Amino acid sequence: MGRIYLGVDGGGTGCRAAFWDTEGRRLGTGLAGPANLTTDFDAGIANVRAAIAAAARDAGLSDDDARGAVCHAGLAGVQSPQTAARAAAALPCTRARVDEDRGIVIAGALGPQGDGTVLAIGTGSFAGRRQDGAVRSVGGWGLRLGDCASGAWLGRAALSATLEAADGMRDPSPLTDALLARMGGTPQGLVAFAATAQPADLGALAPEVMRAAADGDATARGIVAEGAAWMERALAALGHAADDPLCLTGGLGPLYRAALDRDGRRFVPPLGTPLDGALILARAYAEG
Amino acid sequence: MGRIYLGVDGGGTGCRAAFWDTEGRRLGTGLAGPANLTTDFDAGIANVRAAIAAAARDAGLSDDDARGAVCHAGLAGVQSPQTAARAAAALPCTRARVDEDRGIVIAGALGPQGDGTVLAIGTGSFAGRRQDGAVRSVGGWGLRLGDCASGAWLGRAALSATLEAADGMRDPSPLTDALLARMGGTPQGLVAFAATAQPADLGALAPEVMRAAADGDATARGIVAEGAAWMERALAALGHAADDPLCLTGGLGPLYRAALDRDGRRFVPPLGTPLDGALILARAYAEG
Repeated sequence: MGRIYLGVDGGGTGCRAAFWDTEGRRLGTGLAGPANLTTDFDAGIANVRAAIAAAARDAGLSDDDARGAVCHAGLAGVQSPQTAARAAAALPCTRARVDEDRGIVIAGALGPQGDGTVLAIGTGSFAGRRQDGAVRSVGGWGLRLGDCASGAWLGRAALSATLEAADGMRDPSPLTDALLARMGGTPQGLVAFAATAQPADLGALAPEVMRAAADGDATARGIVAEGAAWMERALAALGHAADDPLCLTGGLGPLYRAALDRDGRRFVPPLGTPLDGALILARAYAEG
Repeated sequence: MGRIYLGVDGGGTGCRAAFWDTEGRRLGTGLAGPANLTTDFDAGIANVRAAIAAAARDAGLSDDDARGAVCHAGLAGVQSPQTAARAAAALPCTRARVDEDRGIVIAGALGPQGDGTVLAIGTGSFAGRRQDGAVRSVGGWGLRLGDCASGAWLGRAALSATLEAADGMRDPSPLTDALLARMGGTPQGLVAFAATAQPADLGALAPEVMRAAADGDATARGIVAEGAAWMERALAALGHAADDPLCLTGGLGPLYRAALDRDGRRFVPPLGTPLDGALILARAYAEG
């Protein structure tokens, strides 16, 4: 058997693993629970290992074959080289590299080579750029201090605006009327929801905010414009040039296209998934 | 013994109680732990009762005397008439009224009568206005969705700006340089601090933000200007007229004066504390 590759995409809601052969044909795929190593290192690693074991079974690989694969794992919550090394040592492969999960998103979206910029907008958000092979990213630090323009941020901003509308501090809109009614019709109801809401709960409101903006809701349009302004600042910080390829990815990224459209801006679709990005980085690791 | 009054100021960090005689002379004061009824109703009530018992001892009042006092308690976390009634029934007075804590702040700052507006800015924030005896307030809903311009909000905004400076998304300033160095010099250090920081921890950074703004730090000035803009919108929503008395209170309120100064704006100092406000409202309750 020739060289095989193992890629892992580990995020806060679940992780995916896949094996590929030398030619890039996928041999098998496995899924398991969340892998955020900051939240719970041991549970995260156990889920990564479970996803790899499931992928090996799916591919019909022996433990020895699996151990011989060259692995790149992009895992949420890897915030230091120490954590990355500790995680790599815990994987069932002789040659395993672990990194935070932004790299596999960028590689998956842009493919194995070429310059370009990615705005990855799901429950969280970050922006990344690859230029002459070097990758740099900004954002991706979580909702407490960052994740501007993300789904969780959109949902929270809509609830804050609804609270201000209930207080008479801003004009109500169809969006704030709908949210207020759904939360019991009082500021107290909004505050109670927000007190226990996780980022995913806030992000669940984001599609409604985006729909409202497309329908001309003034509150929603203001929020989306603020998110788009953050994206423009991120692009500027990354040195994105006007005619560089720009890829909007994640569940919400494509919904920002209208807000980001400019003369000469060149939108490109993502070439692959973060799991495809993990294969690209596993190959680069094998070759480098 | 003539009619006596009992006032209680119960907040998230501690509660204060005092008895006064008919002439408004203070007979005794007592302190106890926090009284946020949303956070923990039973513990909050136990602390309110402990503060009242300490004040009665300080005043040399018998249990019967204390029971005969007319009481107004302004307590944090009272978000419904049901909670207020349940709390009033749990106090050791025959005639007790409980309300959320914004009313005693407004009455304390403005005194027993007269129109005026209060911007109360401490760890949290709200704005209140009394006009022809009627009181209305906006804000005060907590940091997750609101508390704009508050100490916790200032601290969080400064950390968010520092994270963006570390990412190269905005110019660093003396304030962001100092905060980044203090948090370990990395975005990860900032994120780790914010992950567990309570509003009071974030508010502890606010005086530094205010000092930096006064010293001309561009980041701090931008944050303070945003807080002041929220205050202006609150004043407008409350119908504050240009020459109405405006009282800046709470630990940080007075520090916003320069940012709020306008032609014809009439700043007035607070006439008393929230505990003084509780006496005013206890008297109004006895008379009403």
